[in-house]
Amino acid sequence: MIAGQIEQAIASLKLHFGERLSTAVAVREHHGHDMSRQPLRLPDAVVFAESEEDVARVVAACFEFGVPVTPFAAGSSMEGHTIPLKGGISLDLTRMNRIIEIHEEDFDAVVEAGVTRKQLNAHLRDKGLFFPIDPGADASLGGMASTRASGTTAVRYGTMRENVLALRVVTPTGKIVTTGRRTKKSSTGYDLTKLFVGAEGTLGVITEVTVRLYPIPETIASAVCTFDTMREAVEAVIATIQSGIPIARIEFLDEVAVDAANLHSGLSLKRAPTLFLEFHGTPRWVEEQAATMRAIADEYGGSDFAWSTLTEDRERLWKARHETIYANQTLRPGCKAYTTDVCVPISRLADAVLAARADLDTSFITGKIIGHVGDGNFHVGYLIKPEIPEELAEAERLAERLYQRTLDMGGTFSGEHGIGISKLKYLRREHGDAVDLMNAVKAAFDPKGIMNPGKLGQAG
Amino acid sequence: MIAGQIEQAIASLKLHFGERLSTAVAVREHHGHDMSRQPLRLPDAVVFAESEEDVARVVAACFEFGVPVTPFAAGSSMEGHTIPLKGGISLDLTRMNRIIEIHEEDFDAVVEAGVTRKQLNAHLRDKGLFFPIDPGADASLGGMASTRASGTTAVRYGTMRENVLALRVVTPTGKIVTTGRRTKKSSTGYDLTKLFVGAEGTLGVITEVTVRLYPIPETIASAVCTFDTMREAVEAVIATIQSGIPIARIEFLDEVAVDAANLHSGLSLKRAPTLFLEFHGTPRWVEEQAATMRAIADEYGGSDFAWSTLTEDRERLWKARHETIYANQTLRPGCKAYTTDVCVPISRLADAVLAARADLDTSFITGKIIGHVGDGNFHVGYLIKPEIPEELAEAERLAERLYQRTLDMGGTFSGEHGIGISKLKYLRREHGDAVDLMNAVKAAFDPKGIMNPGKLGQAG
Repeated sequence: MIAGQIEQAIASLKLHFGERLSTAVAVREHHGHDMSRQPLRLPDAVVFAESEEDVARVVAACFEFGVPVTPFAAGSSMEGHTIPLKGGISLDLTRMNRIIEIHEEDFDAVVEAGVTRKQLNAHLRDKGLFFPIDPGADASLGGMASTRASGTTAVRYGTMRENVLALRVVTPTGKIVTTGRRTKKSSTGYDLTKLFVGAEGTLGVITEVTVRLYPIPETIASAVCTFDTMREAVEAVIATIQSGIPIARIEFLDEVAVDAANLHSGLSLKRAPTLFLEFHGTPRWVEEQAATMRAIADEYGGSDFAWSTLTEDRERLWKARHETIYANQTLRPGCKAYTTDVCVPISRLADAVLAARADLDTSFITGKIIGHVGDGNFHVGYLIKPEIPEELAEAERLAERLYQRTLDMGGTFSGEHGIGISKLKYLRREHGDAVDLMNAVKAAFDPKGIMNPGKLGQAG
Repeated sequence: MIAGQIEQAIASLKLHFGERLSTAVAVREHHGHDMSRQPLRLPDAVVFAESEEDVARVVAACFEFGVPVTPFAAGSSMEGHTIPLKGGISLDLTRMNRIIEIHEEDFDAVVEAGVTRKQLNAHLRDKGLFFPIDPGADASLGGMASTRASGTTAVRYGTMRENVLALRVVTPTGKIVTTGRRTKKSSTGYDLTKLFVGAEGTLGVITEVTVRLYPIPETIASAVCTFDTMREAVEAVIATIQSGIPIARIEFLDEVAVDAANLHSGLSLKRAPTLFLEFHGTPRWVEEQAATMRAIADEYGGSDFAWSTLTEDRERLWKARHETIYANQTLRPGCKAYTTDVCVPISRLADAVLAARADLDTSFITGKIIGHVGDGNFHVGYLIKPEIPEELAEAERLAERLYQRTLDMGGTFSGEHGIGISKLKYLRREHGDAVDLMNAVKAAFDPKGIMNPGKLGQAG
């Protein structure tokens, strides 16, 4: 990019957007980082879009001048997706937060990309419906779609892959297109919806998302159960999934993660490998699922089985689970988590988790393991001070071992956080020559390479 | 294509494939039609592949000489997908019918593309697992993936979109790539798996499919229920779906379709709008689902509620359902069904089905309506003699009305059969400018346009 081009693009956009285009350092700093450990990188300007026409105008200008454009909303990415690696325009979608249509009878919602999951659920509450996907942070639906996000309920309800029905997207040349329909099925044409889901903002800007909704279950029961060993806890998970119970949530916390939940969120859990569980259904059906699960847990030495059907108990539990990410400072003041996100076939889960723990146990750095284990997905968080080179290097060495072992087990090196910046170098190790096809899609959609450049679609 | 090119390609391939390359008219005729009403179109030659290396060799030769290549297996397409519109090579995958791996603990199977759904289920039976998707015919899994097929169980288990985890594909330039992993989730890169699912053999040749499996339910109960009016039957379906019961099958047959089932399959159903139902689960859970369904049916005047948990009753019922497609000759000797396949949001289902019936009632041609109504998907089959121009024109007029009404209701003009040949002209009406992105993907993957040309990816 030539410096003059970005100045021309900004001058051209300023004419239309006025105060909605900012070059203030504080605004640019807010748009230059996310929840990852990636270094700050400032955009040259931030534009606050209020409609898809605004988005199309920004992208068309960036296309004309060959200037990078990176979509931004909640800024809750774990891998630097929204960091404008090559500068240019950060396109802020947070003002596009209108809930457009709720189709109560069809169990779907049409929302602007800046609507967050909590905002949608607050809106839905009195309609008896909910949107289940919960990636910890109060992420935007556009961002969640772009990252192919999931969370604790994916074991029952699927990820954004299964729950995005249709999109409106501004293409890298500034055209507005619709992909998909609200129907439950369709066999008409290439599945562009699924192509944009998980594309991390590199193929266009998602402006509108149509997602599936679900009836709020008649009964929700949650439980906590502890085990003597990590192997027994994970094997209980495997047996549960293999039993076919449609469990709604089944989360694993190792001892360090239990410490985090206790210290940060005021719980008083026993310091042991622990499962957080949840069941959804009719009262009788929940009771039957719970009895089956109880029998499985017994078989693996599970104890302290604490049940509740009270909303407040449940909310406290899941809040603590989601906040384990913020608990790192409590565990080790001044540290940052180097977070990983691997996913293996369920049959390999015990091997994978135990090997990750063994790596930690023989290292001079510490870390915690938590996971959406019903999906075979878990996060090893290395608790390091990244400014200490030896610690960063050790975290990178362990992550590298973790990724390779995961791939060797038939797994994937990201279950839900996506690729972002630092993991792009591993892409070909998982996908081989299929990376060439990804790059071909990128080149076909974005000939000037302006959409969130330096990331997906441009892997070596 | 220049005539000399196909001759060169055939000569080159003959050297390697010998007897496995045929130019015999009978063989070419077998590969020149499918289950659609599309006219016969002969390939210039048929090659019988026995491995993905064979497939790669054929495609590479076709790429070199610029010769069309169209994949073929069961030949059960409903829309002419496997008909080689531009001649060239028909690539027969039926000999690639090895079941490669069954991962019982992970509930997935890896199979060659020519394995059929019945073959897979026969193999699985003693393992307590099954593959649910049942598009009537004993289709190949490669073909089902390519058509994004579904069937009666999609309401519970999803379509091929949700059930294909990974693929191996020969690209249009002859390279072998792997897309996706066996894991339940992944956020690494563009979702190429979903891009090939539903691509109708226009972006490459699927050689291997990894699909999800499910535990055979402890209890399966099926039922038949009749209604006084079509509206009541369909409204009972809508209420069932909205109740959130995880019904495994819920199929609608109008009076004409009931005639077909009675005459062709020796059933003795009352001539009335009818639902075929099925529930899967534990004994108690099935009982509870069935009671809820029964209460809903009562509310809409459902009667003759006949239950069974016997395998033979169930198999007879679903065989009859699947064979309604072959019953057309029984209803009107000499006729062919002009089949449609629309899908609407469930809230519009009653309006959509009743309008389709009204169109038939005011036309001089007759037809039947059957449907996977739990998904909002139904088929109007116009029973015409296509050699009578007035009848064909009338079917086309009614289909055109049906498609436009479906799109106006937020629906899609194909729920599961795909686009194939004759529906390509409607693609832009549903997808607008997104068709340009589809064409861009096609051009990027298949620069010479050799893969199943004249179909998806080349819409005007």
